[in-house]
Amino acid sequence: MNRITKLGLAAALIALPSLGLAQETTEEVAAAVSPEVVWIFNTLLFLIGGFLVFWMAAGFAMLEAGLVRSKNVTMQLTKNIALFSTAAIMYYLIGYNLMYPLGDWAIEGVFSALFPMVAVLEDVGIALADADDPEYASTSSDYFFQLMFVAATASIVSGALAERIRLWPFLAFVVVLTAIIYPLQASWSWGGGFLSEAGFSDFAGSSIVHSVGGWAALTGALILGPRLGKYKDGRTIPMPGSNLALATLGTFILWMGWFGFNGASQLAMGSAGDVADIGRIFSNTNAAAAGGAIAALLVTQLLYKKPDLTMVLNGALAGLVAITAEPLTPTLGAATLIGAVGGVIVVFAVPMLDKLKIDDVVGAIPVHLFAGIWGTLAVPLTNGDASFGAQIYGIFVIGAFAAVATAVVWIILKMIVGIRVSEEAEIAGLDTAELGMEAYPDFTKG
Amino acid sequence: MNRITKLGLAAALIALPSLGLAQETTEEVAAAVSPEVVWIFNTLLFLIGGFLVFWMAAGFAMLEAGLVRSKNVTMQLTKNIALFSTAAIMYYLIGYNLMYPLGDWAIEGVFSALFPMVAVLEDVGIALADADDPEYASTSSDYFFQLMFVAATASIVSGALAERIRLWPFLAFVVVLTAIIYPLQASWSWGGGFLSEAGFSDFAGSSIVHSVGGWAALTGALILGPRLGKYKDGRTIPMPGSNLALATLGTFILWMGWFGFNGASQLAMGSAGDVADIGRIFSNTNAAAAGGAIAALLVTQLLYKKPDLTMVLNGALAGLVAITAEPLTPTLGAATLIGAVGGVIVVFAVPMLDKLKIDDVVGAIPVHLFAGIWGTLAVPLTNGDASFGAQIYGIFVIGAFAAVATAVVWIILKMIVGIRVSEEAEIAGLDTAELGMEAYPDFTKG
Amino acid sequence: MNRITKLGLAAALIALPSLGLAQETTEEVAAAVSPEVVWIFNTLLFLIGGFLVFWMAAGFAMLEAGLVRSKNVTMQLTKNIALFSTAAIMYYLIGYNLMYPLGDWAIEGVFSALFPMVAVLEDVGIALADADDPEYASTSSDYFFQLMFVAATASIVSGALAERIRLWPFLAFVVVLTAIIYPLQASWSWGGGFLSEAGFSDFAGSSIVHSVGGWAALTGALILGPRLGKYKDGRTIPMPGSNLALATLGTFILWMGWFGFNGASQLAMGSAGDVADIGRIFSNTNAAAAGGAIAALLVTQLLYKKPDLTMVLNGALAGLVAITAEPLTPTLGAATLIGAVGGVIVVFAVPMLDKLKIDDVVGAIPVHLFAGIWGTLAVPLTNGDASFGAQIYGIFVIGAFAAVATAVVWIILKMIVGIRVSEEAEIAGLDTAELGMEAYPDFTKG
Repeated sequence: MNRITKLGLAAALIALPSLGLAQETTEEVAAAVSPEVVWIFNTLLFLIGGFLVFWMAAGFAMLEAGLVRSKNVTMQLTKNIALFSTAAIMYYLIGYNLMYPLGDWAIEGVFSALFPMVAVLEDVGIALADADDPEYASTSSDYFFQLMFVAATASIVSGALAERIRLWPFLAFVVVLTAIIYPLQASWSWGGGFLSEAGFSDFAGSSIVHSVGGWAALTGALILGPRLGKYKDGRTIPMPGSNLALATLGTFILWMGWFGFNGASQLAMGSAGDVADIGRIFSNTNAAAAGGAIAALLVTQLLYKKPDLTMVLNGALAGLVAITAEPLTPTLGAATLIGAVGGVIVVFAVPMLDKLKIDDVVGAIPVHLFAGIWGTLAVPLTNGDASFGAQIYGIFVIGAFAAVATAVVWIILKMIVGIRVSEEAEIAGLDTAELGMEAYPDFTKG
Repeated sequence: MNRITKLGLAAALIALPSLGLAQETTEEVAAAVSPEVVWIFNTLLFLIGGFLVFWMAAGFAMLEAGLVRSKNVTMQLTKNIALFSTAAIMYYLIGYNLMYPLGDWAIEGVFSALFPMVAVLEDVGIALADADDPEYASTSSDYFFQLMFVAATASIVSGALAERIRLWPFLAFVVVLTAIIYPLQASWSWGGGFLSEAGFSDFAGSSIVHSVGGWAALTGALILGPRLGKYKDGRTIPMPGSNLALATLGTFILWMGWFGFNGASQLAMGSAGDVADIGRIFSNTNAAAAGGAIAALLVTQLLYKKPDLTMVLNGALAGLVAITAEPLTPTLGAATLIGAVGGVIVVFAVPMLDKLKIDDVVGAIPVHLFAGIWGTLAVPLTNGDASFGAQIYGIFVIGAFAAVATAVVWIILKMIVGIRVSEEAEIAGLDTAELGMEAYPDFTKG
Repeated sequence: MNRITKLGLAAALIALPSLGLAQETTEEVAAAVSPEVVWIFNTLLFLIGGFLVFWMAAGFAMLEAGLVRSKNVTMQLTKNIALFSTAAIMYYLIGYNLMYPLGDWAIEGVFSALFPMVAVLEDVGIALADADDPEYASTSSDYFFQLMFVAATASIVSGALAERIRLWPFLAFVVVLTAIIYPLQASWSWGGGFLSEAGFSDFAGSSIVHSVGGWAALTGALILGPRLGKYKDGRTIPMPGSNLALATLGTFILWMGWFGFNGASQLAMGSAGDVADIGRIFSNTNAAAAGGAIAALLVTQLLYKKPDLTMVLNGALAGLVAITAEPLTPTLGAATLIGAVGGVIVVFAVPMLDKLKIDDVVGAIPVHLFAGIWGTLAVPLTNGDASFGAQIYGIFVIGAFAAVATAVVWIILKMIVGIRVSEEAEIAGLDTAELGMEAYPDFTKG
């Protein structure tokens, strides 16, 4: 998703044939893809990819609503639709132009990019020659696609902190995350910044999207503390999710949306090579999810003698996160294995976090942070252009920035307004205490 | 979605370059989008848009199933799948050709269009030159896309009248709505009729689809009367929805489908300008939904000290309805605000309807009728080609026709067969009384 | 979906204009669709079709989770996500190359195709000239699309055998089904095998996909036996599904996915004729589903005086299965009727199976096997190139093979490891007994 690097390449590729056009035969002309058709295909890719990644917002909402207890479902749904809407507004107001500044990537560039900071699309009915980039794709389609990535980052956080965080402080955090924290670090890799120059490679965002969300979830979970009664006398008390059908639906939705997430991160569809690469990405993305699910199924059977559905769901998601850093270069077999390692990580990391008394309601930290780090590290295994050094450097820089920045925001919010509901509200459930509205009012609770 | 106007434009645009083709250089030829590629892109747009709008049928079903009480869920699901299927059959038998007549739009035209009235698609494997319109798109794709709009109109009605209307009279209403009422008035704007000639502008149907559905819901609610016990001693008795997770899922589904609803209403994708416009529409549609959701969140917090999830969901939907009349010309900021006003309208209109003892179970009238009127009125704010006069004229003509026509049908149905279930059935719930099948039989009702 | 036949056609169609290219005028060149654009469109079709058919996996999961009792929901969800993942891995390891061998379709060909048997995609960034088939589409996109069909076949089985089959033996069956049984018989029709040469015509797989899944379900149900207490003293004891909202959602998901299932089985989108045909297929697929739903609604009303929602859902699905053998050639009216017959079949077949004490929990056998046979038989009614003789021959060959092969696998599994849970586990529910995890733990069971 390094738009600027891609632009250079695309321009070169398109320029190549047109330079010698006068000398070309009629047959060669007919065989080429005309610049306007390339532009249409690239734009269409962003639009299809964008609505698929939008769909992931519903996936997160269903996954989380299914994995919290029934007394907190309305709140979790409210947080999910509100965080998506907040992300949309903040990315428009600040995030997009901060991520893709017109100016230089020196500090001055960042600052100058803040004024004006509101995202502006191309005029209605733009002619190709007047487009912001006539050799690539429409700004509006790129904006639409990139917006969905910010929202995904924020969605990751809401699940981990469920059942005890207050709504408005959470949304205040989302404001800073989607306006500043995500776009700023994303620009280092995808906006032509120093991480891309250092050779860091993160195709669709195992680190840039998923680990950043995971770091925000981890610092939030640490600062917020575990749910009441979750850890007692050295034991972890199970608090099972209220609706596994919804959680499974959410996983399938996320899996489907991931084809857009990874596939459209190819960023171009106007040549045989690009569209065939998207086909590779779709196939590898699916293989990694399958690998993660089956690995979690087998490992939970071996460890606990019983398969664990929530682990299988998170295993599939961890497979998806793991392949996201490099969904293009692996073979199908390698993609399956990269995903499978992600699934294994989840099975071992969930009880480990519980031992550390880090209460992550839905398993977001193992899935998005740990599997995200694994996926980012695995890139050089299949992509000869990547190096372990650059990957570790990127993981460290992004991680350090995300951990510190999100911790600072959480601490400030905690000090100024408080981020946790009262004990009474937590015991009663956030739905009645904070919202006065139950998700399933007709049914007797057991 | 004014197909006929669009055809003229498209034809002109395509004809322009080809007229002087003999004189063009090889380079110019290579840069153009060939007529067949344009045709493929336009057709593909309808197909993608069509399956997205189809998906809205599932969205309405889940939204309504989540917002009715558990004793009426099976009936609501039955109504939704039956109304979609009924719409598909009636639009094939009568609606499509009534909406897009081959003849003139004089009264004679309408009558002659009735014979033959069955929709016929192009032959299998049609050659471009033999297509019904070689300069535009395939008839089948247009049919598929337009059909989904009729179904959406009918879906709006079922939610408002839930929990007390009988199945078969409701479906009889749907027959008339989808065969005659919707197509006839849609032809005035989108079939080359007098409203389009008067300058009325309704891009994807804030009035033509949503308000018409809203009027049918309003006349139905008035003639049917409120649910038993809803209004007592001057107070409104809350009857909370049984499954807010489903309602939220339905909202996300509708939001996703709306990208097809508005985006594919651009009606063309075979040029840079068209596809960039679709990108604008996607971005604006998303912005308006976000604006509506956040506005409802803030206003319910301010008014009631507690955010109200069902208002947030309806706020997002009202934002979507509001932007539907003109999703192309607004800036992102204007789109957000247009949606936000829609969200505010909903928060104030829901209790207002209750004061008037108009019982709208899911909030369909505020969302689709009121926000639809607002969106239609707002068109001239961002589109210089539209005028307030023409907008008000269109709102009035469509509204008067829809209100009178639907009221007449409801009254006739009420007189001939009765439209309301018995008191006993309503108290017991329509699921056991009318269908003998509970939606959640395993769970104890509270 | 006969890839090899299609390739020949596509090659001929593309070769035709290019042979005489030197003599063509500039105007003719401009009008043509360049080979690379054709390749991009075809590949894109598989990618869009593929993610839509992927979505059907979620549809099956929701349909089945909604139609089993609440004590077996977690198990049903686990089976569905595990079977999809298993199918993905086995099709990669063996199935794909078995279905589309590079060698001859003699027995030697089958055997040689087993070595090497792992699916390999084209290189990253492939140039059109280096593609496996420069005149058609990318291998990766075809792989992605075909994989989803295998998974659909396996999904059909899980529903019929719900509530009593053990997880691991079921997954072992899925391994054989997706690695060998499905791909082998699919190659006879779609891999250039003897059934396609015999004139058997099954466009998107009424027999090849749906009936094969249905046969596996039927032999499994017979060998596994009915649920405890299902048939008592000559009566059938109703065991209603626990969540009809989920079942309806699953049906809508399947309906949506079917546009990809049938539409992308056109296998080409790079010409006006192909994309217009996809439009016909979308429209006909929708019409058949509507016909099936309305037919089941009317027939259950007439027979039982009450519409039956589960029959309506299965009626829509039966309509979809029935049109799958030939979604292109029927008129809209014929498609509606073909679907309606499917819906009627379901209403009569469900009680018939119960009389035979064949316990099919979700109605998979009527929907996929019986309506699949009907759809395959109906092809010659609208497609002049098909013959009843060839259709009956194909139904018989595929059915005999699928019935025998699946029965053998079931019997071997039954003898070696056992396929049925204990009586205690079945009565307690598979969720607590086998998985130790309830799907809806917060709610009191009635």
